[in-house]
Amino acid sequence: MAKKVTIYDLAKELNISPATVSRGLNNHPAISDITKKRIAAIANKLDYRSNKFAANLSNQKTYSLGVIVPRLDSYFMSTVLAGIEEVSNKAGYSIIISQSLESMDKEILNAKTLFNSGVDGLLVSLARDTQNYKHFTPYIKANIPLIFLDRVHNLTNCPTIVIDNVQAGYEATDHLAKQGCKNILIITGSLKRNVYADRLLGYKKALENNNLNFEEVNVFETTMESQNAKDVVDYIIKMNKPIDGLFVLSDSFAAYCIQELKRKNYLIPENIKVVGFNNDPISKLITPSLSTIEYPGYNMGLLAGESVINQIKGNIQLRETHSISLRHKLIIRESSGN
Amino acid sequence: MAKKVTIYDLAKELNISPATVSRGLNNHPAISDITKKRIAAIANKLDYRSNKFAANLSNQKTYSLGVIVPRLDSYFMSTVLAGIEEVSNKAGYSIIISQSLESMDKEILNAKTLFNSGVDGLLVSLARDTQNYKHFTPYIKANIPLIFLDRVHNLTNCPTIVIDNVQAGYEATDHLAKQGCKNILIITGSLKRNVYADRLLGYKKALENNNLNFEEVNVFETTMESQNAKDVVDYIIKMNKPIDGLFVLSDSFAAYCIQELKRKNYLIPENIKVVGFNNDPISKLITPSLSTIEYPGYNMGLLAGESVINQIKGNIQLRETHSISLRHKLIIRESSGN
Repeated sequence: MAKKVTIYDLAKELNISPATVSRGLNNHPAISDITKKRIAAIANKLDYRSNKFAANLSNQKTYSLGVIVPRLDSYFMSTVLAGIEEVSNKAGYSIIISQSLESMDKEILNAKTLFNSGVDGLLVSLARDTQNYKHFTPYIKANIPLIFLDRVHNLTNCPTIVIDNVQAGYEATDHLAKQGCKNILIITGSLKRNVYADRLLGYKKALENNNLNFEEVNVFETTMESQNAKDVVDYIIKMNKPIDGLFVLSDSFAAYCIQELKRKNYLIPENIKVVGFNNDPISKLITPSLSTIEYPGYNMGLLAGESVINQIKGNIQLRETHSISLRHKLIIRESSGN
Repeated sequence: MAKKVTIYDLAKELNISPATVSRGLNNHPAISDITKKRIAAIANKLDYRSNKFAANLSNQKTYSLGVIVPRLDSYFMSTVLAGIEEVSNKAGYSIIISQSLESMDKEILNAKTLFNSGVDGLLVSLARDTQNYKHFTPYIKANIPLIFLDRVHNLTNCPTIVIDNVQAGYEATDHLAKQGCKNILIITGSLKRNVYADRLLGYKKALENNNLNFEEVNVFETTMESQNAKDVVDYIIKMNKPIDGLFVLSDSFAAYCIQELKRKNYLIPENIKVVGFNNDPISKLITPSLSTIEYPGYNMGLLAGESVINQIKGNIQLRETHSISLRHKLIIRESSGN
């Protein structure tokens, strides 16, 4: 391996003190822009690799953010991550990404690993089965900013970033009711998670306001993986009272359900009207096109990144913020038409 | 902030030396498993945060991998990342992810930032417009393992992980020709990138073997963003010799093209037969379902992660490896049927 270039080498080349080089590299306000540029140019030329580890011993900052999401291979999550990466990158922060694969055990391990990596902040969207939150205590004790997004939990001083899931659930269900549906089945992920539980609340509220009875038998909880679409359709076929509306809390799972329903000769929207959730690209591309709730994942990512960086920098407004809610929108397409 | 727990605190609690605690935390073979477990338990109890920065001063390892991809919000890339994360996480490595947003300038910045973060290895899939590779020189000089995947470039000692894009392009085109297509349009991303250039080579070879003429006018280069589908269809409409086959080098863009073609009253597959690329979930869900090339993104991610970690650990076999090629598969569905 080539000899490591140090700040002393840079200082020698520039004929300035190592302390000035160090402060210049760390963007210290006392160093002029011209000097900073000279330092950067020579650092570049000599392939200087900053010894962040040493620097971190004193200032305890790593300029990295930890992110834990349930799965990386979900379209919604990938747009959230794209937003987080963009804003972090601009602010000079790296993001260290891990996935819980929907398991609390793995989420606990990831939280621990990221803590030991010295991240300056943590962004979390919870796993399906997470039921206790002790693994976040070290962050809170150490005053490391922690923000929950999408699948959230309320912990002191940890803001949450969400959409108004109750209202979104209400609007989707109300739309189906207004389209004449009398017996609406809701297909939901784990009701342990706020996103699903809140949409179910909205569903119930909309039924009530449209003088429709809520029936337990009309709530179908599933992991919403593609292979489960058959179970949904089998369930629909066997119901005593025919289902005429379907509210599926994920566009991609809605697409699989529609495909199965079509295979069983159901006409969509004539026999069953369908509304999905997220406004994934798939919702525009399937036949019939899918009515859905627009869920601004990219904007959520931008906001989450900005928020955690603001908190790290000590802009304390956000600590006082309990929850930020983003705008959603009902998008009506063919699957719930007449 | 609470007083920081140190290894001295742990040593005192356990009545052993700080050196033993340190070696135990670093999984040193000289320390028994029982002692390691005792140390881990007390570290856990006291919320000890390992001072990796200090440790790194001596062993120069950060147990982190850098990843640069063109975009995070692509289905294919998200499956690759899921694979990389899974294998890295198991091996105790964090992954620091950044996106070039298809820009060489941003790719250069990201490479620099990750270098300065002290990553132990780097995985790269190149941006659309990258045309020089000097930004990777510092990694090579410093002996930091660097692997290219999917969109690759040949640099000394930097293995590439790909599928046989020439062969895949050949199979897709040959299939269309065997289905009776005489005038096949190929829709491709930037031909600066191996993945597209190689598939075009395969396309040409298949035309030749099927006694069809290659015509420049039948190569349509585009960024393959959804809004470009209209341009493709306008182009098809205006062609002198009617197009009867379409090979689109991305499933999602193929789906948008099919949607536009249907809007213009083309029948798929009767008027134009279509083959896509990647086997995204969307290919199964659109009408007609899309013939495509299965591209094992998740496996590519697993392999890339394993490879770079093996290289870091000094298993040098891989350095000698020039290129690893994964298996692809032609999947025939309705869009290229009779």
